[in-house]
Amino acid sequence: MVTLRTPDPLLDRIEALFDRQNFAALLGMRLSLVEAGRVVVEMPPDRRLTQQHGVLHAGATTTLADTAAGFAALTLMPEGADVMSVEFKINLMAPGRGNLFRADARVLRAGRTITTVEARVQARGDDGQWADYATFLGTMICLMPKTA
Amino acid sequence: MVTLRTPDPLLDRIEALFDRQNFAALLGMRLSLVEAGRVVVEMPPDRRLTQQHGVLHAGATTTLADTAAGFAALTLMPEGADVMSVEFKINLMAPGRGNLFRADARVLRAGRTITTVEARVQARGDDGQWADYATFLGTMICLMPKTA
Amino acid sequence: MVTLRTPDPLLDRIEALFDRQNFAALLGMRLSLVEAGRVVVEMPPDRRLTQQHGVLHAGATTTLADTAAGFAALTLMPEGADVMSVEFKINLMAPGRGNLFRADARVLRAGRTITTVEARVQARGDDGQWADYATFLGTMICLMPKTA
Amino acid sequence: MVTLRTPDPLLDRIEALFDRQNFAALLGMRLSLVEAGRVVVEMPPDRRLTQQHGVLHAGATTTLADTAAGFAALTLMPEGADVMSVEFKINLMAPGRGNLFRADARVLRAGRTITTVEARVQARGDDGQWADYATFLGTMICLMPKTA
Repeated sequence: MVTLRTPDPLLDRIEALFDRQNFAALLGMRLSLVEAGRVVVEMPPDRRLTQQHGVLHAGATTTLADTAAGFAALTLMPEGADVMSVEFKINLMAPGRGNLFRADARVLRAGRTITTVEARVQARGDDGQWADYATFLGTMICLMPKTA
Repeated sequence: MVTLRTPDPLLDRIEALFDRQNFAALLGMRLSLVEAGRVVVEMPPDRRLTQQHGVLHAGATTTLADTAAGFAALTLMPEGADVMSVEFKINLMAPGRGNLFRADARVLRAGRTITTVEARVQARGDDGQWADYATFLGTMICLMPKTA
Repeated sequence: MVTLRTPDPLLDRIEALFDRQNFAALLGMRLSLVEAGRVVVEMPPDRRLTQQHGVLHAGATTTLADTAAGFAALTLMPEGADVMSVEFKINLMAPGRGNLFRADARVLRAGRTITTVEARVQARGDDGQWADYATFLGTMICLMPKTA
Repeated sequence: MVTLRTPDPLLDRIEALFDRQNFAALLGMRLSLVEAGRVVVEMPPDRRLTQQHGVLHAGATTTLADTAAGFAALTLMPEGADVMSVEFKINLMAPGRGNLFRADARVLRAGRTITTVEARVQARGDDGQWADYATFLGTMICLMPKTA
């Protein structure tokens, strides 16, 4: 993220939790965009993340999508809330190949308890064009800290 | 896997592809059981695989399940075939906590092109008991090499 | 259901709600088994429920599964609670053909708010044997009436 | 559909199959838009289609979405092909209430065998506004007639 910027409480809140996701760090993910109801997360290609065909493992693609989706849901939850994935589905429409990957997650419906999120997972080709190669649809739950 | 064993063409075939999955290796996965229509994959806990709550990231759980499911489907496909995930869904029923994780994947229906697989993902507690904490249902496709 | 039977508060509660499901009645469904955490619903074949190939429409199969799953979840909810489907997935593994259909739904995890349910949808062949032809995995939510 | 219109081979093909879906007819569905890669199907509210809360049964909503999705996939398949649902998932984001329902299905990726489709299911309120209340993501398979 940029070093000099206008204070942004939402971004600060999301970044603080993002930075505590060891698995996101292991996969090289970084927050690319944070708005109310929308989060984009990027991930560079990495040989450690491939399956037997040399393309991105479906599990890595799913982790990217789930990460973006969870944080997108969190942007619309009250301060102090945390988020957990209840369930999700992903369709892997093409092999995961490219020089950069990203998941663009948008909240479809934010309820008090349950939030529905979709994410398009995209790969950038050598021509610089982004193409969708996976689609994610999931359900997130809002967790509030127990009051004393 | 064991060093001395009866030759087992199915196990050899699965192991050969499993060993080419960099992402499965990064996550510490190992094949635990291979039968026609069923594969169990184990994964040890690892701080690098956690999310912000210190429990296993949903993406790591999903990768474990998808890996077992793909190989379970492959056990019923013709020799020379390869397998890709078309899509899957996972329900994360409880936080991923334990001293060992495993996905137990079984083929529900093996078609010529499409195979349906389910997997139970389990965590082993300090009492040595295994408990389901996630359920996976997915669709795999059989890929045959193009003939010359 | 049987006419003479031991009083069964759980069955009474489920039947009372089942009887208010107009769509279940339109499709000819009937409760076949009600236990804590498990409900089986049957549906006879009917030409009105078919798609262009003359087999059961995927929507009718899904309705059967969702109905059994919702009531299975309800059996473990507190008295006075009601249930809604948050989401579900179904894999249609074979065409829906038979002289009777049934969905056998079991709760995998019952939480205070969220319940995970799976259902096997089966068709009975001319030989009297039941075979799975669809698998359902879904998420139900517990709704409690607002207190005055 | 309109009575006088320019000949439209795609629409003719879709209508011919749609008219053979008994279950779609039972639920009062009608084709509202047919384009390459997109189909919209409408369904009027009907007391026979409700669940215990008096709102549209999740199964009716799903049938509407699956019907639109299957035909959207079919628009991009070769002439003579038929379509079957392999699997789908639906998130029911709000109760199904309105004076008209519709599913707007779009193909995300059309492969030779497998097509991925999403559909937004919408309800029209008393103010005439359409609002999404369910989201569907599914996989369709192309069936070609066996050649003699």
